[in-house]
Amino acid sequence: MAESIEERVARLEDLEAIRRLLLDYRRYLDGKDFHAYAGLFAVDGEFIGGPGGTIRATGPQGIFELVDGMRGTLLTETGGDDLHIAVNEVIELDGDRAHVTSTWVYLIRGEGDVPEVSKIGHYDDTLTREDGQWKFMARTAPMDIPAQ
Amino acid sequence: MAESIEERVARLEDLEAIRRLLLDYRRYLDGKDFHAYAGLFAVDGEFIGGPGGTIRATGPQGIFELVDGMRGTLLTETGGDDLHIAVNEVIELDGDRAHVTSTWVYLIRGEGDVPEVSKIGHYDDTLTREDGQWKFMARTAPMDIPAQ
Amino acid sequence: MAESIEERVARLEDLEAIRRLLLDYRRYLDGKDFHAYAGLFAVDGEFIGGPGGTIRATGPQGIFELVDGMRGTLLTETGGDDLHIAVNEVIELDGDRAHVTSTWVYLIRGEGDVPEVSKIGHYDDTLTREDGQWKFMARTAPMDIPAQ
Repeated sequence: MAESIEERVARLEDLEAIRRLLLDYRRYLDGKDFHAYAGLFAVDGEFIGGPGGTIRATGPQGIFELVDGMRGTLLTETGGDDLHIAVNEVIELDGDRAHVTSTWVYLIRGEGDVPEVSKIGHYDDTLTREDGQWKFMARTAPMDIPAQ
Repeated sequence: MAESIEERVARLEDLEAIRRLLLDYRRYLDGKDFHAYAGLFAVDGEFIGGPGGTIRATGPQGIFELVDGMRGTLLTETGGDDLHIAVNEVIELDGDRAHVTSTWVYLIRGEGDVPEVSKIGHYDDTLTREDGQWKFMARTAPMDIPAQ
Repeated sequence: MAESIEERVARLEDLEAIRRLLLDYRRYLDGKDFHAYAGLFAVDGEFIGGPGGTIRATGPQGIFELVDGMRGTLLTETGGDDLHIAVNEVIELDGDRAHVTSTWVYLIRGEGDVPEVSKIGHYDDTLTREDGQWKFMARTAPMDIPAQ
């Protein structure tokens, strides 16, 4: 059951689209464009973070409110004072679903205006294709260092 | 107006070629191969850096001279003493042009021979396809941390 | 001698498969799944590290024993206490072989439970396609900072 060229190209396009979703997430988060950020989640998509997964929100509006409330606390107030790097993505496609793991490294403007590696963690994602667009169905974002 | 398989494959090839351009830039820069580095710019390509975009050069020869002059000042004298990581690339294709943003993190051999995150910034690029090769039409390289 | 669509798609698939190999390497290494890690090497694949390439092993079993012996010394005892980021990959395909260079940055849980950039180095890889799967024929992993 060899795949057709059409199926093979569609698979490659899915990988590109999913990488782009991961990178848009970081871009909107660090750009403090929290509306665009929240729009990357499916209608009933979930964000799960914090110690033991205790920080949660569901749906774009709830997720917008959650992340907007992190400004000045878990995130810096001002764009350019913090930055995620999103790397090490491993993508498992499964039709209109996908499972992805990746690494995030959170850097901030530290004392004396020098860069500081502040936190490291990973993402465990379930993605879904919604109206032809890959979206986050569930993004779990544990912090690894420091320990939560 | 569905795209043909040929068009879809060409788009995927463009994404690969553009990622390769970004990675060759870093490779030649950190390898201190400034001739190869300058050859990644279009004939009338521009490099724009420094506070307020005040560090500028146009065309491969001018860009070679600019970067060669950074050796021992903005860049280390010796290869292996500094390194960029080039990540977070977001690529927008537009025919024979493309717009790309990405993140650079500059690491150096610090005091006591330990790695040090020295600077963080981003790239805003306009690319052009010149004789079938993607080249930098304009690369703007603002530093974010420390502030310029 | 234009390439066929089939050849062009196969090339794109090879690039994806090779990136995945590099990322699985990191994933299994940091997950301390050293059997899966060693299985990424060809039957007669080699790992070459250490000062002057003096740390060597050949074949999955030998490589498993080598990396398992690094636990608690060159690697942390416990998963989650260390992490590689694998970036800057430049892939040159050559039929059933490939040459790849990339950058590794090794982060650890430092004093006071804060992230610390511990080491930086690079990989020089020769890959081979073995039974349809890309594997490491030779992975050389020099450390750059600190100097070996």
